[in-house]
Amino acid sequence: MQKISVAIIGWGNVGRGCKRAIAENPDLYLAGVVRRPISLKQQDPSLADTKVVADIRELGKVDVALLSLPSREVPERIKDYHALGICTVDSFDEHERIPALKKELDINAKAKRAVSIFATGWDPGTDSGVRAIMKIASFTGHTTTTFGGEKGGRSMGHTVAVKAIEGVKDAVALTLANGRGKQKRRVYVELLPGANPEAVAKAIQSDAYFRNEPTEVLFVKKIDKYNTLHHEGDIERTGMQVNQRYTLEGNNPELTANVMVSCVRACIAARSRGEYGTYTFIERPLIDYLAGATLDEKLEGY
Amino acid sequence: MQKISVAIIGWGNVGRGCKRAIAENPDLYLAGVVRRPISLKQQDPSLADTKVVADIRELGKVDVALLSLPSREVPERIKDYHALGICTVDSFDEHERIPALKKELDINAKAKRAVSIFATGWDPGTDSGVRAIMKIASFTGHTTTTFGGEKGGRSMGHTVAVKAIEGVKDAVALTLANGRGKQKRRVYVELLPGANPEAVAKAIQSDAYFRNEPTEVLFVKKIDKYNTLHHEGDIERTGMQVNQRYTLEGNNPELTANVMVSCVRACIAARSRGEYGTYTFIERPLIDYLAGATLDEKLEGY
Repeated sequence: MQKISVAIIGWGNVGRGCKRAIAENPDLYLAGVVRRPISLKQQDPSLADTKVVADIRELGKVDVALLSLPSREVPERIKDYHALGICTVDSFDEHERIPALKKELDINAKAKRAVSIFATGWDPGTDSGVRAIMKIASFTGHTTTTFGGEKGGRSMGHTVAVKAIEGVKDAVALTLANGRGKQKRRVYVELLPGANPEAVAKAIQSDAYFRNEPTEVLFVKKIDKYNTLHHEGDIERTGMQVNQRYTLEGNNPELTANVMVSCVRACIAARSRGEYGTYTFIERPLIDYLAGATLDEKLEGY
Repeated sequence: MQKISVAIIGWGNVGRGCKRAIAENPDLYLAGVVRRPISLKQQDPSLADTKVVADIRELGKVDVALLSLPSREVPERIKDYHALGICTVDSFDEHERIPALKKELDINAKAKRAVSIFATGWDPGTDSGVRAIMKIASFTGHTTTTFGGEKGGRSMGHTVAVKAIEGVKDAVALTLANGRGKQKRRVYVELLPGANPEAVAKAIQSDAYFRNEPTEVLFVKKIDKYNTLHHEGDIERTGMQVNQRYTLEGNNPELTANVMVSCVRACIAARSRGEYGTYTFIERPLIDYLAGATLDEKLEGY
């Protein structure tokens, strides 16, 4: 069986997780990492065995590009890879922008005969799949999704958004449960010398990622002891005939990477049937995400 | 929008649940119930507003037949409906027979330009979807499914199997959790006059539904007070990066009916694309099971 050739775009926590996840799946192989500056190679010993390039075309044939980039850069970068006929998987996470962007990127993928699984990871992504299943099993019910539990968990999208704000040296943005279906945010910020704390707090609280939820900004000397990769989620659906609950807890970027790497297979399955386009997680059959050479292998344990 | 025409085949607890579920979904309508003897109509006031026939052809155009029949009758009956070009949904539940039967029924459906969602309901069915999602999110983990909890729940397939045994007047078969991933069975049996309890107990314990699990058979004067429609399930996956858990509890036949009725849409979506065949739940995109006239409506809350 020919292995699927995968490139990782970006080298943050999710990119690192993707490298580990690819190594755990014998049907995939890592063609290389795309990142500027490529001098990074000298800095990170975990890339010693990996090609690091500035342009994906230097890697030869790549089937799927895993975009482990800040969410806001994702839509334009997907188009760059479509232009090269390369499939993409990303973890874009601004829920309300998904339907419109999906439509636009779908036209783009079809024109370039590429396939994208868009806005995947665990939420949106597998959690969207769980919410769909809950609705299939109980269509008159009510679903709530709550993140972070009592101790809070790292929101990657929010953390990246805060780090991009002027005056911020380092940060971690936590999501905490705030009653069924509601969240609140706590942001630990290490400032650059001379930065204005009030201006930074205001910039965070008015950012689209934060402005709809209670957001507490705490300034600390060093981020280190507040840092965490843990997150957790809780989806509940109560209905007339049945009640359902799904919980997960674990390492947020590693979990995101697992889902993204499973999506590589769904890209190739769709491409092999000529079903070009940009799809969200729930638009492709679950079986296409699973490992296994034959249908019977994939159905094992059905 | 033209409504999807649905017939219910059989009139047990699941068939009744399907009637209620169809009424809750404005994109579907009930063409009628197929059952012999049709004199049933006089016996069941809940069928007063419903056509009851002995042969589905008496109902005019039917898009999808919901087979609410004993599991063991299902495979042959699917073929009968394929022969008429009618799509089917069923809740066949013998897990180990699914891959081979699916293959056979898939050839049959394609030849007759029909679509079937085979072996659906909650387990196999939506639970299979949850197990697939858990694997997508954590491919190096270990999954266990446990049914019935401490108080036990009604297994419909097992109950039907016991009721078919000679000497049994009425019965209810409960599934109880027996440690992570293991089950035990408790069967309450009301005997026909003159029946031999030892022979009945032996017939139950050697039936394919029971022979692989500890099965206790208890004889009672009247089933009534031991009867229940409740069931519950618990799927856990522990992995290297993430732990997941999904639980459900509720009315077993109503839950099965909900899932079966959601599968009607997936049949029609596949048929409209010319994707004839017999599919398990995880082989069709989740979005095809959901209500909503447009993709954006279906993606709502993604």
